[in-house]
Amino acid sequence: MNACIISVGDELLSGSVVNSNSLYLANQLRDFGISLKKILTVGDNEKDIIESLESCKKSSNIVFITGGLGATHDDVTKNAVAKYFNSQLLFHEDIIRKIRAVFEKRSQKMPDVNKVLAYIPDNAVILPNTLGTAQGMRFEKDETIFYVMPGVPAEMKQMFGNVVLQELNKISNKKIRTKIIHTALAPESEIYSKLENWIKKQSKIKISILPRLPEVDVSLTTDSVDGSKLLQNAANEVKVLLGNAVYAYDSETLEQVIGKILSENHKTIAVAESCTGGMIANRLTNVSGSSQYFKMGIVTYCNESKSAILGVKENALKKYGAVSKETALEMAEGVRKISGCDIGLSSTGIAGPLGGSELKPVGTIFIGLSLYGFSETYHKVFTGNRETNKLLFSQYALNQLRLVLHCR
Amino acid sequence: MNACIISVGDELLSGSVVNSNSLYLANQLRDFGISLKKILTVGDNEKDIIESLESCKKSSNIVFITGGLGATHDDVTKNAVAKYFNSQLLFHEDIIRKIRAVFEKRSQKMPDVNKVLAYIPDNAVILPNTLGTAQGMRFEKDETIFYVMPGVPAEMKQMFGNVVLQELNKISNKKIRTKIIHTALAPESEIYSKLENWIKKQSKIKISILPRLPEVDVSLTTDSVDGSKLLQNAANEVKVLLGNAVYAYDSETLEQVIGKILSENHKTIAVAESCTGGMIANRLTNVSGSSQYFKMGIVTYCNESKSAILGVKENALKKYGAVSKETALEMAEGVRKISGCDIGLSSTGIAGPLGGSELKPVGTIFIGLSLYGFSETYHKVFTGNRETNKLLFSQYALNQLRLVLHCR
Repeated sequence: MNACIISVGDELLSGSVVNSNSLYLANQLRDFGISLKKILTVGDNEKDIIESLESCKKSSNIVFITGGLGATHDDVTKNAVAKYFNSQLLFHEDIIRKIRAVFEKRSQKMPDVNKVLAYIPDNAVILPNTLGTAQGMRFEKDETIFYVMPGVPAEMKQMFGNVVLQELNKISNKKIRTKIIHTALAPESEIYSKLENWIKKQSKIKISILPRLPEVDVSLTTDSVDGSKLLQNAANEVKVLLGNAVYAYDSETLEQVIGKILSENHKTIAVAESCTGGMIANRLTNVSGSSQYFKMGIVTYCNESKSAILGVKENALKKYGAVSKETALEMAEGVRKISGCDIGLSSTGIAGPLGGSELKPVGTIFIGLSLYGFSETYHKVFTGNRETNKLLFSQYALNQLRLVLHCR
Repeated sequence: MNACIISVGDELLSGSVVNSNSLYLANQLRDFGISLKKILTVGDNEKDIIESLESCKKSSNIVFITGGLGATHDDVTKNAVAKYFNSQLLFHEDIIRKIRAVFEKRSQKMPDVNKVLAYIPDNAVILPNTLGTAQGMRFEKDETIFYVMPGVPAEMKQMFGNVVLQELNKISNKKIRTKIIHTALAPESEIYSKLENWIKKQSKIKISILPRLPEVDVSLTTDSVDGSKLLQNAANEVKVLLGNAVYAYDSETLEQVIGKILSENHKTIAVAESCTGGMIANRLTNVSGSSQYFKMGIVTYCNESKSAILGVKENALKKYGAVSKETALEMAEGVRKISGCDIGLSSTGIAGPLGGSELKPVGTIFIGLSLYGFSETYHKVFTGNRETNKLLFSQYALNQLRLVLHCR
């Protein structure tokens, strides 16, 4: 079963708004095993909407249209679908009463312009909008189903959950299963080289390799009846081929994996950051319940605070510089000591664009790790811009922590 | 002059990846006064790509295709365009040499699979990729220009800036000017109410109000010949109507605005974070040169570290709780003292989903601010999920800091 999404709205072509409705719908469709063929994003323009409807009908069983259902002059979606489905617009007294009530609740008089919202195509099934004033509509044409929904994300999601979900449950007879394998710090072509021969042998599973900064995902999809087992076996085989690069599956994040290991082993962690500027702490604390194991983060953005708070020896700073494995290690040990935690993790490097040298170019990172009976430093050079480097640095630090925790 | 964008990639239909390339291109096109007709998002599928090319050629002078140029089995864009333009693929010795050099720089052996990247359609102009290994291509057919570019955002942007920009400069004869006005912590409907009458009076400027978490932007667009002056006057009028809610224009961020004030006044800052978990420090250090004024960040995720490191009195913690204005203030004063900075900024609250109570629900935030001869706390309740709350908390903290700095 195939679907298309038509997103309507000038703002979606302006470059300033993310098309979050199509992201949401794509996610929902994947779970129903409905294959999303394409997303068409067009402006508030009757002709473009009608052309999109025609083009989508050819290739799909279900078409979702969102946006352009409001009461102002630039909302033309309803007129476009009315033309496309040869509808007459009928005035609904009950709808205008409900809209008036919404305004009264806010102690406002309903502006007359809203009357247009009570005109609905006669051959549409109305999808009630429980959060806003623009009603949704359902049409059928030549065995394709069309859901027309508002562009306001909260209203669209509510309508989808209230009505569309149940209908999809009935018509989707196939269950597509997906397994996502997350890998850290291995380049896409390396992942592919290691999987190439294996991929060629798979007949029932579709494999995609998806770079998604700061990582590469391997996605496995199948519509086999024994899909669940197939995917599990395949994921195990991929794990063997890729080894330690695999850190998690499906919706699990790197920071959640780390949190799980720390919780299970009743270990606590503190971080001392320089070039990552708080990003490592921020990522670790994105996990609900992280206060159980994450106790303290320190961002030392000057030498004085590295010495005063973390106890990094001035000798190390002078002799090797703030960006060095020696300083990284002292930072990790320092934060471990003052926090009383089991683990200290540190970062020091050059995010750029300024501050690089020939010996230590922009993108240079040193990671320090100090834990019960073990300390180590790690060094790498990345080539992104400031924000990308910070992200890759934090990924590198968290991944090294994961690798060490896994082996202990 | 019209354009279309074709975004290629299964991941873009999976619901897990934002189509950031089309956002970027849409922004660029707007600046050139090139009207973007539609964005087509399709999977890694030859037939769908070819159909999209045909459909876009009909309606546009320029077509941008991004994604699917990599070396793995699911990258089919090059084969699709080669079919569409009846090309022969030619092997380029110089390209494979360059790719090999990229891997050598990273001390890696080039996997053989990358050889496919050196085959280029014979009727394409090569657009060099200075950051990665997949080359871009330029085609012409029946007076429509096609730019085929990699899907990796950094590579695409670099290629666009190096080659496409100059070409668009030559062919675009209209200059559309845009001014973006950034506002902090005022709801969309409040912004609209304050601007409603003013918007009605504008004939030469198009105004859009764009909610964009954690803020609301007001976008002004014009194609008038005196656009630059028009927009400046309009922006001044909006500033008068919205007052202090306006914090910056165009590409400037809240953390850059703060950085500018701090630099100009030779003031330094340190932050003590609880519920924001490092996000405030992370945002402040996203600004290049921030080490000049940002000296230290401390993330205290347990009461012990609030007392031990920041010197928050156990009395305050016991009597009022860790989430209280008293604790917020002691944190701000504590971090200011130990860092020796001019300003201490703190956050303590409940990001959720757990930890809320009737008196202090999830979303509760207290901000503490301590600076030369001034200290204050701020309190608010937000209603997002954990990550949204952290973002809104950090926005609230930085915005309060901005407001105070502006008045002093």
